[in-house]
Amino acid sequence: MNGTPLQVVGLTGIGEVHAGDDVAGLVVDALHAQRASLNDGDVLAVSSKVVSKAAGLSVTATERDEVVLRESRRLVAARRTPTGVARVVEAAAGPVMAAAGVDASNVEGDVVLTLPPDPDAAARDLRERLHELTGAVVGVVVTDTAGRAWRTGQTDFALGAAGLDVLDDLRGTVDAQGRDLSVTARAVADEIAAAADLVKGKTRGVPAALLRGLADLVLPGTEHGPGARSLVRDAAGDWFRLGHVEAVRAALGAGGVEPPPVAPGPVPERLGRAAEVALAAGPVTGGAVTVEGPELHLRAADEFSLGALTQRVLSALWAEFLAGLVQRGPDGVVVRVVELPR
Amino acid sequence: MNGTPLQVVGLTGIGEVHAGDDVAGLVVDALHAQRASLNDGDVLAVSSKVVSKAAGLSVTATERDEVVLRESRRLVAARRTPTGVARVVEAAAGPVMAAAGVDASNVEGDVVLTLPPDPDAAARDLRERLHELTGAVVGVVVTDTAGRAWRTGQTDFALGAAGLDVLDDLRGTVDAQGRDLSVTARAVADEIAAAADLVKGKTRGVPAALLRGLADLVLPGTEHGPGARSLVRDAAGDWFRLGHVEAVRAALGAGGVEPPPVAPGPVPERLGRAAEVALAAGPVTGGAVTVEGPELHLRAADEFSLGALTQRVLSALWAEFLAGLVQRGPDGVVVRVVELPR
Repeated sequence: MNGTPLQVVGLTGIGEVHAGDDVAGLVVDALHAQRASLNDGDVLAVSSKVVSKAAGLSVTATERDEVVLRESRRLVAARRTPTGVARVVEAAAGPVMAAAGVDASNVEGDVVLTLPPDPDAAARDLRERLHELTGAVVGVVVTDTAGRAWRTGQTDFALGAAGLDVLDDLRGTVDAQGRDLSVTARAVADEIAAAADLVKGKTRGVPAALLRGLADLVLPGTEHGPGARSLVRDAAGDWFRLGHVEAVRAALGAGGVEPPPVAPGPVPERLGRAAEVALAAGPVTGGAVTVEGPELHLRAADEFSLGALTQRVLSALWAEFLAGLVQRGPDGVVVRVVELPR
Repeated sequence: MNGTPLQVVGLTGIGEVHAGDDVAGLVVDALHAQRASLNDGDVLAVSSKVVSKAAGLSVTATERDEVVLRESRRLVAARRTPTGVARVVEAAAGPVMAAAGVDASNVEGDVVLTLPPDPDAAARDLRERLHELTGAVVGVVVTDTAGRAWRTGQTDFALGAAGLDVLDDLRGTVDAQGRDLSVTARAVADEIAAAADLVKGKTRGVPAALLRGLADLVLPGTEHGPGARSLVRDAAGDWFRLGHVEAVRAALGAGGVEPPPVAPGPVPERLGRAAEVALAAGPVTGGAVTVEGPELHLRAADEFSLGALTQRVLSALWAEFLAGLVQRGPDGVVVRVVELPR
């Protein structure tokens, strides 16, 4: 095949990485063992796992949940699972991801690994050290793995980057037909991480890959570029700041209620949760909500409080895929529920 | 370099594609012109754009907004922009994406392209036709471009797939340390699309790429596999079924209000929107909400209605990054607002 193909080569033989190891040195040794060398314009993708191991970022696994919370800046969504709570959070390292990127796979013994606190700095260090060792001006991507909001499975993405145009911004340019590509900015650093994962693979003990053929994305040795942090949306641009359940609870001021389970469960259970959320949304004078069959019975000390409580219940029911029909009862309000289509 | 590298080659010279063209034939011609051929185990990634063009899926651009709505199954989030409304929707073609994948770039004249209604079927047809023409058993990915919830920029993903293990499911397997990889299922079809985009590129007129070195993911000729549709989360597994603003409005029953702008704007404007949402959330007997400086003044015909309206206003304010302090006024409720941190 001619043209300029992109080549992606997994670096085998790096072996187990320990605290204090020189990742750049291990990469260069692995390249030599494969009779390869680094060229100017190459891109090296390295799993965050080896960066974290070399930096000694391991914690005993008995504290995993606590570690996840410590590594989280903000809860985005959570669900109860049979073994605990699964959380999507804004990680201290930058991205929104499950469990703040705290990882128990491919680690020895009862420890978990945390992400490098500044992944772009880790990528810069690696880039500079590779230059010292080989003289080559390369791009570096520190990769990690994450799920996506609306797609199953995980893909690798750029957690950190140095020496790379992370975003190939086509805004203001035109396509082959002369049309304005006003909304197109390709997140090439993430695409590089994804391409590298096709040859790395979790089970194979291949924590790094060399990509050749992307020299047009690699910056001069004096420029490290904006880094992968620039690919994380800021709050103003984030239309999915909370999951839909979490958004409704937050709007009610009932953020502290235990997360719902992954599978929503039978209607009485969901009614109970809606009642709990409605009552957690701030004090209601004389407020009470009881589940009676397919109904919720609401009481409060005064009409104003009863109106507010009723509105809270209706909103909380929506987050349980239920709609309520409000009727006045002898001493309060009765809300009959029907299932909403999903 | 030795090992088994992954090679990704862009297919140049495909040129403009027209309704009725044989995409497989164009691909084979382009390969021949590059002195390449298809081998068993190769993966071909083709932009949905050429598939749609060949299928004649173009519509005049004056109707773009209408086309987006027609190609949408469900609204997920929307914001007003200076030129219209930007929408994230569940597209008829399957995935959640902006503007239902309706595309105006790289199309001639005043037309937009819609996505193939069954992208997996399109991938299967392409795979079978490539086999007819070349005898090779390959995997096919029909790629498209989409943004991500929490990351800026777009990446390519698998809109359709045939003859491919789209998900490399490691659940139940163990890592190099013998640990259960219980949560890992790599969406390799999406990673293939991303890798292909690194050599395709919107401005370059390179609508297809050949990937060599992934034969372990390619299925026998008689099996087309689950397709890319299987990578779309179902409703029960979707924690981000609506944007946070849309979730609050839906829980209030005020889904029909005009979307908020991309930039949230000054406080009085946000107060006005919150009032509108609160009143749209169903009839309130004698209900009225007026903006007076940094306050909202609420009235209703009875105490129950006033309580319900107050609760609606508080929830609607949250979606505007505002919190309200409720006070009883001479003839209703006064809600003073403070900005919430973002």
